[in-house]
Amino acid sequence: MERILANVREKSPLVHCITNYVTVNDVANILLACGASPVMADEEEDAQDIVAIADGLVINIGTLNRRTINSMGQAGKRANELKRPVVLDPVGAGASNLRTKTTFQLLEEIRFAVIRGNISEIKTIAQGAGSTRGVDADLKDAITEKNLERIVPWVKELSNRLGAIIAITGAIDVVADPQVAYVIRNGHPLMSRITGTGCMLTALIGAFVAANPDETLRATATAVAAMGLCGELAYQMTVRHGTGTGSFRTYLIDTMSQLDGKTLRGGVRVETR
Amino acid sequence: MERILANVREKSPLVHCITNYVTVNDVANILLACGASPVMADEEEDAQDIVAIADGLVINIGTLNRRTINSMGQAGKRANELKRPVVLDPVGAGASNLRTKTTFQLLEEIRFAVIRGNISEIKTIAQGAGSTRGVDADLKDAITEKNLERIVPWVKELSNRLGAIIAITGAIDVVADPQVAYVIRNGHPLMSRITGTGCMLTALIGAFVAANPDETLRATATAVAAMGLCGELAYQMTVRHGTGTGSFRTYLIDTMSQLDGKTLRGGVRVETR
Amino acid sequence: MERILANVREKSPLVHCITNYVTVNDVANILLACGASPVMADEEEDAQDIVAIADGLVINIGTLNRRTINSMGQAGKRANELKRPVVLDPVGAGASNLRTKTTFQLLEEIRFAVIRGNISEIKTIAQGAGSTRGVDADLKDAITEKNLERIVPWVKELSNRLGAIIAITGAIDVVADPQVAYVIRNGHPLMSRITGTGCMLTALIGAFVAANPDETLRATATAVAAMGLCGELAYQMTVRHGTGTGSFRTYLIDTMSQLDGKTLRGGVRVETR
Repeated sequence: MERILANVREKSPLVHCITNYVTVNDVANILLACGASPVMADEEEDAQDIVAIADGLVINIGTLNRRTINSMGQAGKRANELKRPVVLDPVGAGASNLRTKTTFQLLEEIRFAVIRGNISEIKTIAQGAGSTRGVDADLKDAITEKNLERIVPWVKELSNRLGAIIAITGAIDVVADPQVAYVIRNGHPLMSRITGTGCMLTALIGAFVAANPDETLRATATAVAAMGLCGELAYQMTVRHGTGTGSFRTYLIDTMSQLDGKTLRGGVRVETR
Repeated sequence: MERILANVREKSPLVHCITNYVTVNDVANILLACGASPVMADEEEDAQDIVAIADGLVINIGTLNRRTINSMGQAGKRANELKRPVVLDPVGAGASNLRTKTTFQLLEEIRFAVIRGNISEIKTIAQGAGSTRGVDADLKDAITEKNLERIVPWVKELSNRLGAIIAITGAIDVVADPQVAYVIRNGHPLMSRITGTGCMLTALIGAFVAANPDETLRATATAVAAMGLCGELAYQMTVRHGTGTGSFRTYLIDTMSQLDGKTLRGGVRVETR
Repeated sequence: MERILANVREKSPLVHCITNYVTVNDVANILLACGASPVMADEEEDAQDIVAIADGLVINIGTLNRRTINSMGQAGKRANELKRPVVLDPVGAGASNLRTKTTFQLLEEIRFAVIRGNISEIKTIAQGAGSTRGVDADLKDAITEKNLERIVPWVKELSNRLGAIIAITGAIDVVADPQVAYVIRNGHPLMSRITGTGCMLTALIGAFVAANPDETLRATATAVAAMGLCGELAYQMTVRHGTGTGSFRTYLIDTMSQLDGKTLRGGVRVETR
């Protein structure tokens, strides 16, 4: 995983994000913090050109509208033609009809390298893709040590069906392709007390995958573990300084900008299944 | 007021915000800091669905456009049907024709639980609603100890006319329904040296009111006092660390995330009239 | 330069920004930190009214779309009629056809007081305006001590051709009108590790120029030097606290809010050529 991070720092991939306006600043800053470069462009004509100079594309449907939905589709297809990795964050899929519809439409139009969401968003995708309800019901709201054994094959199977690496994040993260699943136990609950940790992680995945084109699964798992580790380190700083969630958000970007290979190697809690 | 805050923490209301893109990240983070959950959706179709799963709606006209004006109206009407509280922040009403027109249009289409603005924005609303000019001229640019006695009945009367609780914030805050006015003396001038304190407060009101549906007036006053108190605490941190307005903004979210009932009770400076 | 800063603090100019949604919050906060007031409005009808009450207009094409391109043009023309200074930040000009086209269209429609960009953006403008390729090729990717002597007359000539002060920022900054160039050596490389330093600087130029209408060149140079100096001071804080880029961003706004005339005078590294 050290080499994966080193590649990001060395190649400094340009990551094109069509993302929501709530967390866009944090997304840009975490990309810079990990060594990548962000570029945001969501007008169709602009996005077409920008995607061509970028090393990867991240699509986040957090605050979509008719105009940006169209740009997402066009930019995604162009990225596919250019063989740039495309990462999807289906924010709120299942919570509104427009978000669910848009997610399925994007899944039809675009080949995604990675799809990252929480369990509820990924379940929505799985159901739309014809998943068996029985397993889904099993999942309820979280991946736990108890249901992990049944979830891992389900995620692998979903990855196979969608032709994309699936990253489900929560207290326990599962990142899987059809053969191998990484189970990652980094992170801290405080990460859910600020906005944007999911969006930031998806953008990081875009950067890590763009800089490691031959190791998409490992790059995705590394991004997930690195983000979780930074959450832990940022939490420690919050405790040390007696500060709250505002500072925690700042520390998260601080720790990502300071993360070195040794700290990453020593801190990740990852197993493969 | 402790119970009001405890209810927010316990119920964790989902607050749907159609808000400006300048301060939207701070709005989301302060909602999380107080214990609520934010969701932003401003495309009409999306907003219709999201408002139905949310516990309250906050409309902020800070950077409006034709598309979002329409979404505000539709979402507001839907929230009314669903009996969810709707809070309005008429940012810049009076400063441009579009903002003033939009404010009046929204006031006609939607029943607001609370309207929060500075004195100038509320005066604009009052004039449009047929207020006597004499009193308005009296108000000038700020609520002061000197004009407070004449302002309080004017705010009550305005609340009566509009059928909404009115919250005017500044050095001295007045929060009133037709019968009772809270006069709140929390806050610090540094709050006006960063962007978003008004927007954050309006969102907090949305959360506090959603979690305390039977005590809208008291919930609004508590949100105003809590925000002011956090401003004071954040200012103390700024002095202690010798930092500036960038850190002050972070501390504001820190202190909200750390605010407990005892600190709130000990720190609020509130009287009713 | 102390007087230039004092004028900003004293007059507190209202700066209307039509800017990108990535860095808009930082732009608003740095304007407040320097003593100015921000107002964002990008819907055509709204922008027309707001520009009339503002002291200056800043146009930043970072995340443009059809709607905002139109608003930029209309607001810029109105500002020209009202004799308010207009500042352009051609973010990404040269990187996409839409950005390049929009830049040239705005240059045709609007008289800019100042244009600020990095060397690549300004080269794009120069080429569109008919610059000789030889000199451009010379510039490559950065202004260095080695090529400075040839760049300075080129910038003066470009300023003459465009009728606007040109500010090229990078490791070495050059700010020039047709007669005089300021060469500024403030700043720190960490400034390029966060998003928004360029956008923030352009907004500051808007504020400094609006508050010093008879000294546009000197006001621009002062804004550039002040921003660079704050970058140095923020870097020192980052070292002192052992923090990363998240904190650096906060410190940048801190130091701007605390910058006094004496620190500015003692810290600027400026020469005229």
